[in-house]
Amino acid sequence: MPKFPVEPWALRETRLDLDDLAQTESLFALSNGHIGLRGNLDEGEPFGLPGTYLNSFYEERPLPYAEAGYGFPEEGQSIVNVTNGKVFRLLVDDEPFDVRYGKLVAHERVLDLRAGTLRRDVEWISPAEQRMKLTTTRLVSLEQRSVAAFLYEVEPVAGPARIIVQSELVANEDTPEPSKDPRVAAALGHALTGEARYASDLNAQLLHRTHASWLRLGAEMDHEVDAPVPVQAHTETTEDWARTTFACELQPGQKLRIVKYLAYGWSSQRSRQAIRDQVHGAIAGARLGGWDGLVKAQRRFLDWFWGQADVEIDGDAEIQQAVRFALFHLMQAGARAEARPIAAKGLTGRGYDGHVFWDTESFVLPVLTYTHPQAARDGLRWRHDTLDLARERAKTLGLKGAAFPWRTIRGQECSAYWPAGTAGFHVNADIAAAVVRYIQATGDHRFEAEFGLEVLVETARLWRSLGHHDRHGVFHIDGVTGPDEYSAIGDDNIYTNLMAQHNLRHAAAAAERHPELARNFGVDDEELSSWRDAADRVHVPYDHELGVHQQSAHFTLHQEWDFAGTPAGHYPLLLHYPYFDLYRRQVVKQADLVLAMHWRGDRFTPEEKARNFHYYDERTVRDSSLSACTQAVMAAEVGHTELAYDYLGEAAFVDLYDLQRNAGDGLHMASLAGTWLALVAGFGGMRDHGGELAFMPRLPGRINRLRFAITCHGDVLRVDVNHNAATYAVDQGELSLRHHGKPFTVKAGGPVTLPIPAPHPATPPPAQPHGRAPRRRRRDE
Amino acid sequence: MPKFPVEPWALRETRLDLDDLAQTESLFALSNGHIGLRGNLDEGEPFGLPGTYLNSFYEERPLPYAEAGYGFPEEGQSIVNVTNGKVFRLLVDDEPFDVRYGKLVAHERVLDLRAGTLRRDVEWISPAEQRMKLTTTRLVSLEQRSVAAFLYEVEPVAGPARIIVQSELVANEDTPEPSKDPRVAAALGHALTGEARYASDLNAQLLHRTHASWLRLGAEMDHEVDAPVPVQAHTETTEDWARTTFACELQPGQKLRIVKYLAYGWSSQRSRQAIRDQVHGAIAGARLGGWDGLVKAQRRFLDWFWGQADVEIDGDAEIQQAVRFALFHLMQAGARAEARPIAAKGLTGRGYDGHVFWDTESFVLPVLTYTHPQAARDGLRWRHDTLDLARERAKTLGLKGAAFPWRTIRGQECSAYWPAGTAGFHVNADIAAAVVRYIQATGDHRFEAEFGLEVLVETARLWRSLGHHDRHGVFHIDGVTGPDEYSAIGDDNIYTNLMAQHNLRHAAAAAERHPELARNFGVDDEELSSWRDAADRVHVPYDHELGVHQQSAHFTLHQEWDFAGTPAGHYPLLLHYPYFDLYRRQVVKQADLVLAMHWRGDRFTPEEKARNFHYYDERTVRDSSLSACTQAVMAAEVGHTELAYDYLGEAAFVDLYDLQRNAGDGLHMASLAGTWLALVAGFGGMRDHGGELAFMPRLPGRINRLRFAITCHGDVLRVDVNHNAATYAVDQGELSLRHHGKPFTVKAGGPVTLPIPAPHPATPPPAQPHGRAPRRRRRDE
Repeated sequence: MPKFPVEPWALRETRLDLDDLAQTESLFALSNGHIGLRGNLDEGEPFGLPGTYLNSFYEERPLPYAEAGYGFPEEGQSIVNVTNGKVFRLLVDDEPFDVRYGKLVAHERVLDLRAGTLRRDVEWISPAEQRMKLTTTRLVSLEQRSVAAFLYEVEPVAGPARIIVQSELVANEDTPEPSKDPRVAAALGHALTGEARYASDLNAQLLHRTHASWLRLGAEMDHEVDAPVPVQAHTETTEDWARTTFACELQPGQKLRIVKYLAYGWSSQRSRQAIRDQVHGAIAGARLGGWDGLVKAQRRFLDWFWGQADVEIDGDAEIQQAVRFALFHLMQAGARAEARPIAAKGLTGRGYDGHVFWDTESFVLPVLTYTHPQAARDGLRWRHDTLDLARERAKTLGLKGAAFPWRTIRGQECSAYWPAGTAGFHVNADIAAAVVRYIQATGDHRFEAEFGLEVLVETARLWRSLGHHDRHGVFHIDGVTGPDEYSAIGDDNIYTNLMAQHNLRHAAAAAERHPELARNFGVDDEELSSWRDAADRVHVPYDHELGVHQQSAHFTLHQEWDFAGTPAGHYPLLLHYPYFDLYRRQVVKQADLVLAMHWRGDRFTPEEKARNFHYYDERTVRDSSLSACTQAVMAAEVGHTELAYDYLGEAAFVDLYDLQRNAGDGLHMASLAGTWLALVAGFGGMRDHGGELAFMPRLPGRINRLRFAITCHGDVLRVDVNHNAATYAVDQGELSLRHHGKPFTVKAGGPVTLPIPAPHPATPPPAQPHGRAPRRRRRDE
Repeated sequence: MPKFPVEPWALRETRLDLDDLAQTESLFALSNGHIGLRGNLDEGEPFGLPGTYLNSFYEERPLPYAEAGYGFPEEGQSIVNVTNGKVFRLLVDDEPFDVRYGKLVAHERVLDLRAGTLRRDVEWISPAEQRMKLTTTRLVSLEQRSVAAFLYEVEPVAGPARIIVQSELVANEDTPEPSKDPRVAAALGHALTGEARYASDLNAQLLHRTHASWLRLGAEMDHEVDAPVPVQAHTETTEDWARTTFACELQPGQKLRIVKYLAYGWSSQRSRQAIRDQVHGAIAGARLGGWDGLVKAQRRFLDWFWGQADVEIDGDAEIQQAVRFALFHLMQAGARAEARPIAAKGLTGRGYDGHVFWDTESFVLPVLTYTHPQAARDGLRWRHDTLDLARERAKTLGLKGAAFPWRTIRGQECSAYWPAGTAGFHVNADIAAAVVRYIQATGDHRFEAEFGLEVLVETARLWRSLGHHDRHGVFHIDGVTGPDEYSAIGDDNIYTNLMAQHNLRHAAAAAERHPELARNFGVDDEELSSWRDAADRVHVPYDHELGVHQQSAHFTLHQEWDFAGTPAGHYPLLLHYPYFDLYRRQVVKQADLVLAMHWRGDRFTPEEKARNFHYYDERTVRDSSLSACTQAVMAAEVGHTELAYDYLGEAAFVDLYDLQRNAGDGLHMASLAGTWLALVAGFGGMRDHGGELAFMPRLPGRINRLRFAITCHGDVLRVDVNHNAATYAVDQGELSLRHHGKPFTVKAGGPVTLPIPAPHPATPPPAQPHGRAPRRRRRDE
């Protein structure tokens, strides 16, 4: 577990530990949502996992089945490790710089959350005793989405040195085989076929395409070099690599300074020449303002972002760092995705094949909606762009409307295990809920008309055809899988049913707002009524004996899991127990009913929430990173504030502490989002049922003050909470809000301060399953 | 659909239709349970599917998963098409005999059910106008299990001819790729590696082994030749083939007569020399009595078999033929299996990879138990032999006792789709029930002590650990799949629960009968009590509003299938609709609750049976061949005698009419068994609850008389039913029986005739799903 000094605005690594390379490559990944560069060492090796990704640049592969079935997807999609332009090899008097040889006197890497750069400072003594200083800085431009840039500075410290720097583009890098763990991506050996190459002076370009998905990719590098001595340089290319070699003799204190501009372009349709021009144009754009221009623009963007997204915490500096780290990576994943998906790992690793799941809409977009609504809008536009594929999938499945894929890159269903894939129909309601949330938070009626309505209509149709009325007129949705992947193919999953209800009602409401558009989609009054009626009769399973809701029909009658008899090493359970055994027991992988109580909190009484939380928290093992944040949100609501604080810690440190031991495959975007949710929806108590912002702030003992900002209808609401009171202020205009249930209005220039009532939890704090209590955070600073 | 003349003791094909080759190869397959020869043409081609099988001679292959899970089997097993010794190539004046060329004047094949031979008579005019007569007869010896033999006779009709006959052994034949249909076996290209070969005079031997399963195989052929002219002959071998070439010149009326002896041996352990000797010894044994000796022994065996197994029918000659055809193939599958499995297709094809499923114990063994108990015993001994593997599997699954595989050849679980495989735990109760049935029918207490008890104990342990008591003390078995594969992973499947109850109770009773042995297996009084208590508290789901039992919890609340909207071409549904859609609806692939009413008829009142049958028959599409016979049995019991008669037809003709369009992959052993069950348990009304034989005979209008025999405790009970009365007789000793509920005793020499009451069906006949009514049989002869 790497230890990072606690700092408010940076993630700093002061010592290189080769065992943590994969993890730190993920943590130090730079991205703008279009290009993603893992934090690989400049010299290319050693590495945990080399990684350079372009959003939606994938390869297809056949999905094998020993026993196939109708409707099983036949093609998978995997993110491709594209041409690597991060590489700078260094030779010092013929000795290659490699941290495994010679002596590493100092090695520091800093991810600067305000600058948007990764800086590395190295002092190294070569095996031949040559002492060198190396400083590199890299960025992936938030302003120019096709561009990354590197500043590479090297100087001898003790004696004169012959310095050779080789800056490269490398396609089809060798990468390690992924493990047998199904959560890790499938191997995709050498996915790229060379199509063209070009070099001149300090510039080189490589064009490749994929074998099966037939996507074309261009990568170009260009350089500026600066040194107090003559530097010889030349560039060579082959099909799979390009190399610019710089050579000079430096005296101690003399510095060789190289700026490298790197640009990418890709398309499924455009010609080689078009891609070639596009990439070269991007390089020209980057050179316009040069390195300094890129650095300045980077900071300008981040100043704007932090101005409307920052969360400030007094009393827990670790959480302060973690939430900024989280927001930084969410921003990176979404900033320039621009109608491309935000994957579960962003562009930080190849975990889950680079796929996007429901957690984007259910965890990531809720944060972006209130901190960077434009990014949320872009993510939802991507879903809308895939509607034709989703309609086709619904048809294959014998359903109406649209069935969005459980996991995908391009929009096709790529889930090869349908009980935990296709059966997870709730993804459709999650997408619809994200559409509704975005429209309510922004008032973006143009989006509703152009994109939102169609998504709502088609998902509503899905639910209407998937569910049915029983002989008493109750509406059931049978045989589906909810968020908890340790149950599957159940009847009346409560999360699914309540989210479908929400979907049906809001689709009807949106169609009412846009009657003409809705008619164009074939919606008539009968269909609208059938949505409303089904929504009104949705079954919500409840165990009257126990006085708790059921995650799905029968759930509370299932056998209990033997938690006491489960060794700590047997978690995550799915790697040690068969599905059938997990499915038939009361063991919950991740928040399901508890998540329903968050997003559909309007459907439960406070007493129900308290009893349900107690019951399900005691059976939730949190083998998924989508658990802790939701447990935090609901623990806070039902008054278990210190337990919520512990869960916040688990959500916040999933990657920084590598709690799931797979951060090396990429960061957990949803859990990073969960850090914000745990703070804002948990301790801030923020809810947006029906579009009205409500807060029930209440802090754990150690956090003295929590400040966060919510972008809402173009205005920014600033909430400042301490143990006694919360103060609400808006930058402009006015907003109607609720504070612990009571409505009030806040206007620009007139902050409102309201007292915070003491908690009255209806149950004692639950005991988590044996050995699965969250790590307790220190209660005092 | 081939048309076969209706004959009591033969299946005759009078015209060769190349489109039906695959089907007729299955229908004309010869086997003794150890060796299986598909009815391929002697000259090797054309073919539907070449096939020569040895029981349990399989190859391993990796089972691929796009998304693997804990406990998913990694290795599959597939039956291997072994060295083909059926081939006789014929050249007539240099023209190869091939039915596709020249003119086929006559072509007849006859499977003689009393002789146990397949005879072929051909008259052919070659493209060069040479007219030939060819007669071949083949048998797979029921007396010498390693031996098959062929009599090959050829003569020119019109003018003198130069005749070349090449008799061969061919390993690694090219076979067609199986279809994408998951029910068809996986391809296994060239599975055999040559190890040794030997030839002398008219004899040749080939030794091979498999690549992965590392099984060694020897095949040897030897010949006797007889002709009125000199015959030149020589033998050659290569790694993959051996060939004995016979050449002579024949005048019209002169006949070349070749007898070919073919022997096989295989082992996973024995040396090349041991196999070589074993196979050669088998050839020597066959030559001892020669062709005539083999033919005589074959008839002797069949005389014995028919003497105790024959079913005689007056009024429906087609059914008469079909039931004898069925019994013949069941006998062939089981006669000499000898502690090897009886696969779903016997040794007649590679369908289902050559795997054995639960239908062996639930359909095939019930027939063999009462007609050829030794074969039933051998089949159960095979299961016992695999107990260690089943215990290992249970452990992998986190269960106690033994978990027998859903599908296998050698005993390892080979099911790659667990919701319809591993979750089908009922296979364990089916095996236990077959053990109980065999012991009760035979009084074979030595079997119980040596084999049966251990199987009962270990399966009881499985159920006890798989199920659990709820808060009210009711015992539930959740998350399993019953026989109906259009539902899966349900709670409290009624078939599973009732069969588990039976398993638990009989295990306890057997342990009580063998207290010392049971103690050796670690059974104590507490464990016995826990089995009995769980059995007493097993949940039997019932819908009080509808007054019918539920196939599993919630079933009767699920959405109905839109049968009216389902085109005829969309059956079987699993090839046209996704599992999730089938699973969540009230559509039944095959008898499940109705099967429970057959085997656990003691647990249902007559009124319940009538209502349940009506409800479920209306929702059962019979996409599985394991359906019609059970619907027949229960339709007969509840008084829908004519419907039962239609279902009998469907069961009886599944292969003869190729109703499922896959008879070419092998015969449906369970449905063949179902023909007997539909007659004996259906119109004979035979039940054996608790070991007491009971009958409720009642015939459909067209069948005037039904006679069948039941082997019981070494005695043979003969039942002779007409529309008015049934007569019971025993060959020796005495038996206590029931007739329509009333107990009586029958003694040797004192047949008992009892009247048959009129039926009083409690419901009108059910209407099957739209378009799925069974073909109506003609009501009068």
